[in-house]
Amino acid sequence: MPDQVPLQLGNTRLDRLHLALESGALLQAGKMLNALHPGEIAHLLESLPMAQREMIWELVNEENGGEVLTLLADEVRDDLISKMDVSELLAATEGLDTDDLADLVQELPRTITQEILDSLDQQHRERLEAILSYPEDTAGGLMNPDTITVRPEVTLDVVMRYLRRLRDKIPHQTDILMVVNRDGKYLGVLPLTVLVTHDLDDTVAEVMSLDVRAIPANWDDGRVANRFEQHDLISAPVIDEEGKLIGRITIDDVVDVIREEGEHQFMGQAGLSEDEDMFAPVLVSTRRRALWLGINLLTALMASWVIGQFEATIEKIVALAVLMPIVASMGGIAGSQTLTLTIRGIALGQISGKNTRWLILKELAVGSLNSLIWAGVVAVIAGFWFNDVNIGLLIATAMCINLILASLTGTVLPIALEKLGIDPALAGSVLLTTVTDIVGFLSFLGLATLFLI
Amino acid sequence: MPDQVPLQLGNTRLDRLHLALESGALLQAGKMLNALHPGEIAHLLESLPMAQREMIWELVNEENGGEVLTLLADEVRDDLISKMDVSELLAATEGLDTDDLADLVQELPRTITQEILDSLDQQHRERLEAILSYPEDTAGGLMNPDTITVRPEVTLDVVMRYLRRLRDKIPHQTDILMVVNRDGKYLGVLPLTVLVTHDLDDTVAEVMSLDVRAIPANWDDGRVANRFEQHDLISAPVIDEEGKLIGRITIDDVVDVIREEGEHQFMGQAGLSEDEDMFAPVLVSTRRRALWLGINLLTALMASWVIGQFEATIEKIVALAVLMPIVASMGGIAGSQTLTLTIRGIALGQISGKNTRWLILKELAVGSLNSLIWAGVVAVIAGFWFNDVNIGLLIATAMCINLILASLTGTVLPIALEKLGIDPALAGSVLLTTVTDIVGFLSFLGLATLFLI
Repeated sequence: MPDQVPLQLGNTRLDRLHLALESGALLQAGKMLNALHPGEIAHLLESLPMAQREMIWELVNEENGGEVLTLLADEVRDDLISKMDVSELLAATEGLDTDDLADLVQELPRTITQEILDSLDQQHRERLEAILSYPEDTAGGLMNPDTITVRPEVTLDVVMRYLRRLRDKIPHQTDILMVVNRDGKYLGVLPLTVLVTHDLDDTVAEVMSLDVRAIPANWDDGRVANRFEQHDLISAPVIDEEGKLIGRITIDDVVDVIREEGEHQFMGQAGLSEDEDMFAPVLVSTRRRALWLGINLLTALMASWVIGQFEATIEKIVALAVLMPIVASMGGIAGSQTLTLTIRGIALGQISGKNTRWLILKELAVGSLNSLIWAGVVAVIAGFWFNDVNIGLLIATAMCINLILASLTGTVLPIALEKLGIDPALAGSVLLTTVTDIVGFLSFLGLATLFLI
Repeated sequence: MPDQVPLQLGNTRLDRLHLALESGALLQAGKMLNALHPGEIAHLLESLPMAQREMIWELVNEENGGEVLTLLADEVRDDLISKMDVSELLAATEGLDTDDLADLVQELPRTITQEILDSLDQQHRERLEAILSYPEDTAGGLMNPDTITVRPEVTLDVVMRYLRRLRDKIPHQTDILMVVNRDGKYLGVLPLTVLVTHDLDDTVAEVMSLDVRAIPANWDDGRVANRFEQHDLISAPVIDEEGKLIGRITIDDVVDVIREEGEHQFMGQAGLSEDEDMFAPVLVSTRRRALWLGINLLTALMASWVIGQFEATIEKIVALAVLMPIVASMGGIAGSQTLTLTIRGIALGQISGKNTRWLILKELAVGSLNSLIWAGVVAVIAGFWFNDVNIGLLIATAMCINLILASLTGTVLPIALEKLGIDPALAGSVLLTTVTDIVGFLSFLGLATLFLI
């Protein structure tokens, strides 16, 4: 289904803005810009090279500034923040939701954080400190303390009057009200759809729903996302260890988690961060990519060292040099298929102690069957190419060894890395390639040395 | 942030269910199972090897069956459906939301689809046919026609009475009511939070919001997802070409689109479909993976053919065989970094005609700088290793050529593929590797033949 995401080459709004900027109509450009939704402004900023980005950022008014900052990719945001002074930052943070403010504050220098905390009233500050006490990637770090709570014994009529008093202070994405007891313990939810469809004389206790289980504050964000997906939630209550309601998580933040998880897996394979800014300055990008290239150079050098051990063999049979990349590369492909599947399984929480053994055996079987098929094909091609049955047999054997080992590594490696607390999405592919390159060259050239010379 | 998605090795619910099954307590297992949310049942089924999956599926009761089917990954669903007879399928589709039913119907044989259509009342059937008339990956295909509409001239009191009559028929994830005129044209929305906080004597027109722009039915799903993310929507109206309201899209379906887009990018790199079932039978997995291995074998054979053209050169300087994989592999790594970044940029709609040139130039600059750094390092290592300055100069030159070309290919290739209607997430990596392998071997061995022999 997502095959056909459009290139959006004719993004007219962007084009019109460009036009206004190029013609120097800054006032008009500013108006066009601030009429956009903060999410759209953030998207626009992310799509611009650095120089233009800063020019556009200058045009964003204070009212939008804070929310735009919270919606930007980390890297773009940090860059813009680094160029703002304290008073601009204080102005931008005014009126933000507490969870957004918490996100932002974590990126700021400590001195500025203190100034922002000092500028808040006590209730607001305590709420912010509550969020900041949880790691960013947990339910506690995702939550917003601004929940609307009601007591079970009141009637819907009382609830309605309470809501009318709140009016514009009702937080966005409020689909349910939280029902708590006298001690603040979470009891259940009162969906707005229930509120508007039931008799106003009914009590909350009579009509509330017990279906929405509260999320403990220490759950990690991946687990929170799975809960939202499996239960089709829009918002969910968060509780502390004593079952007390301390906030709620809304779907917009969960969508960010899901988006980032997907990007993390995808970009991690190439050693990139999900926050990588496409329009970062050349030197910043170069430095960041250089590290990954360096790590991979080590892998390549190790593989070359293995080949170097067989110089004498290659000198006698040059065909080996011609064919050896095939063995290494097919192992890499087979291994990365298994690796990819396993990393996704881990992320979705589909891999448990119960099915790990089954999965390893299955991947071994798939790898073995495919190694037989393609080793056969390669054997025939190589045999005819160099007019030598032994070369064919040799490459077939080496390929079987490498593909089977690749399947095993592709399953076991990410599970082991995860248990060791190392991110498989980042470290998996380079470690796998090291194994498949070395085993590929070693088995092919080693067997040749043993049997052909 | 998503670094620490847990392995959930101690999934107690799964373990307890296993225990119940192993001890033969089927009745108890069935009860435990059907007490779960359909989303959780789907997740559980996806986490089980085939034989156990079918056993568990037998235990799912009719009430849950249909919804579980709609929540399963395509591949798992198709497999279960293939084993159900017509009456079971008819029972499962009863009571489903129209958009879910549409998803399901598209996977069924035509004869069964007709039976299901016949079993519906006219209104229901017309709605289903309306969805089926749009491609699955458009706003029209995602939408659900079951919207609640109100007219601008009525008072909130009338709306409230209308909702009380509907009561349990209010569709899930209803956060806004749609305001339409006499001709069914979309005018704006009435959020439930506005409904419950305003005077019941106010008219809808007085308090409705014009902020939610309607989504045209022909928008593709990636664009819909971007709109939801940028505007923090929970549900949004869908209109036809004449501006008439024809349905609404809810965030749960958008979350699926985002999840699938991420998985598509990640798994596509390894030639896997995002619907790939981790627990598919060995033969099914083998066949599917074989194709990708075969395509990559072609790439590897082409690279080998290039090396084969230089057999005489390698025979004279075996060091070339030892070092040549470094040139090819570093090009592959540099290219895949650029490719990954560009594919994500396309998916996020961040790449437009305006910034393509800038992006290409930037990636070329990054590639050039990194090629200089690492070519220098490799030159020194290779020079000392083989005690030959010329070998060092040679590999440095070849690496520069390959890395710069890789950066160019990594940017231009996915943009070109997208314009040609070919999915860059699937075809990009194999085409890129072909280029970096061939250019890597050709430049290194070709230059050696020209200058060292």
